[in-house]
Amino acid sequence: MSGILYIVGTGPGSPEQMTPEAVQAVEAASEFFGYGPYLDRLALRADQRRIASDNREELDRAQAALTRAATGEKVCVVSGGDPGVFAMAAAVCEAIDKGPEAWREIEIVVTPGVTAMLAVAARSGAPLGHDFCAISLSDNLKPWDIITRRLRLVAEAGLVIALYNPISKARPWQLGEAFSLLRDILPATTPVIFGRAAGRPDENIRVMPLETADAAVADMATCVIIGSPETRVIARPGRADLVYTPRFIAGDKR
Amino acid sequence: MSGILYIVGTGPGSPEQMTPEAVQAVEAASEFFGYGPYLDRLALRADQRRIASDNREELDRAQAALTRAATGEKVCVVSGGDPGVFAMAAAVCEAIDKGPEAWREIEIVVTPGVTAMLAVAARSGAPLGHDFCAISLSDNLKPWDIITRRLRLVAEAGLVIALYNPISKARPWQLGEAFSLLRDILPATTPVIFGRAAGRPDENIRVMPLETADAAVADMATCVIIGSPETRVIARPGRADLVYTPRFIAGDKR
Repeated sequence: MSGILYIVGTGPGSPEQMTPEAVQAVEAASEFFGYGPYLDRLALRADQRRIASDNREELDRAQAALTRAATGEKVCVVSGGDPGVFAMAAAVCEAIDKGPEAWREIEIVVTPGVTAMLAVAARSGAPLGHDFCAISLSDNLKPWDIITRRLRLVAEAGLVIALYNPISKARPWQLGEAFSLLRDILPATTPVIFGRAAGRPDENIRVMPLETADAAVADMATCVIIGSPETRVIARPGRADLVYTPRFIAGDKR
Repeated sequence: MSGILYIVGTGPGSPEQMTPEAVQAVEAASEFFGYGPYLDRLALRADQRRIASDNREELDRAQAALTRAATGEKVCVVSGGDPGVFAMAAAVCEAIDKGPEAWREIEIVVTPGVTAMLAVAARSGAPLGHDFCAISLSDNLKPWDIITRRLRLVAEAGLVIALYNPISKARPWQLGEAFSLLRDILPATTPVIFGRAAGRPDENIRVMPLETADAAVADMATCVIIGSPETRVIARPGRADLVYTPRFIAGDKR
């Protein structure tokens, strides 16, 4: 008998940014697998079991959750933000791909959520108003030369760039090097947004030009958005600047 | 006296995918500006005023909403999905940028939402599990040669590609041409997801290889996700295939 595996996203952290669909999946499940701080965001009942694990043990966690779902349990795997963006949905799919045939029979329900770049964008204007990309800066996930090649190509393409996993204790220099290589391609005035804890009480959004963007402003919980050559900043009296990327690019064909 | 301008996203369409924060903004506002079908998603009270306009009149709509907010009204501009992704938040910022100084004093509150690509990704597995981009295929917004250049660069970069505004009556051939140019860069087996009305009762998700991907499958309400060379498809007995992009890319440095 097969159970069901929910993969939910809590959104950026505020309960007000978590969808009713995700809340209902949490109410329906009996066992919860996730990184501790994400599980802490849920108000679980006494009859709901909580299995917290370290942030880096994603494949192990996915396998543990699938093992329980295969016995008929209603299991919930919890991600921050959206579970499909650099998060647990891919880890669960990978575990199914490599795992026993029986795991392919388990019902999988992914509930989407507000991913970090959307929350940061909302708090700073509309920097993702036109073509953009999301790139993980973690060289635990892919070789650094692939990351730098991707950054160069998307900057040359004129896309706004959202960087996930920009920095950590074990990866202190990568964000600075990313800024450095982007300075060779993008205008010095290109706005860079450092968005931390968007939508939460400890929110901190800072905007600075690429020329002086300082990697030390970011930490693990920061999403960094680097504008395109079209991205503009609107100064406002007594209010935070608005950063936006226009919907149109002028040219021969409109 | 300045009012407040909320810019909300309804999510993909199901009320279960709209955040409580967006619902609260709708409850707080007295006048609503938006494309009719998006306004139809809201259960407005008798005392709330509805001003529907055509989908293509975004700047006019933004200006009308700002004009009302500047008189002290609580105004709400409504987008489907996330208002910051190819939607009204950028139109409002543009109107402020070009508009009277007084508009810079208006409080702007953007509530993020689940954008179409996240909803489609959730229903098909985890195709956005690693680096990806979102590109509007509308050549009403930018010249076609910029679009084709961007598509080539992001495909060469190895990013998963989510296409917004893939096709319309006035733009019938662009999606087919996009598939054609991507076939020169990406493997023939690259999975292509056509996601229509994800999360709604009339949902339709189809997956086919790039080699045979048929633009006629898409319509205006479709979000098309084209995998990267790493994206994989898992066949499952009696269930829809799962499409996912692995979290890791192997290489010299892991």
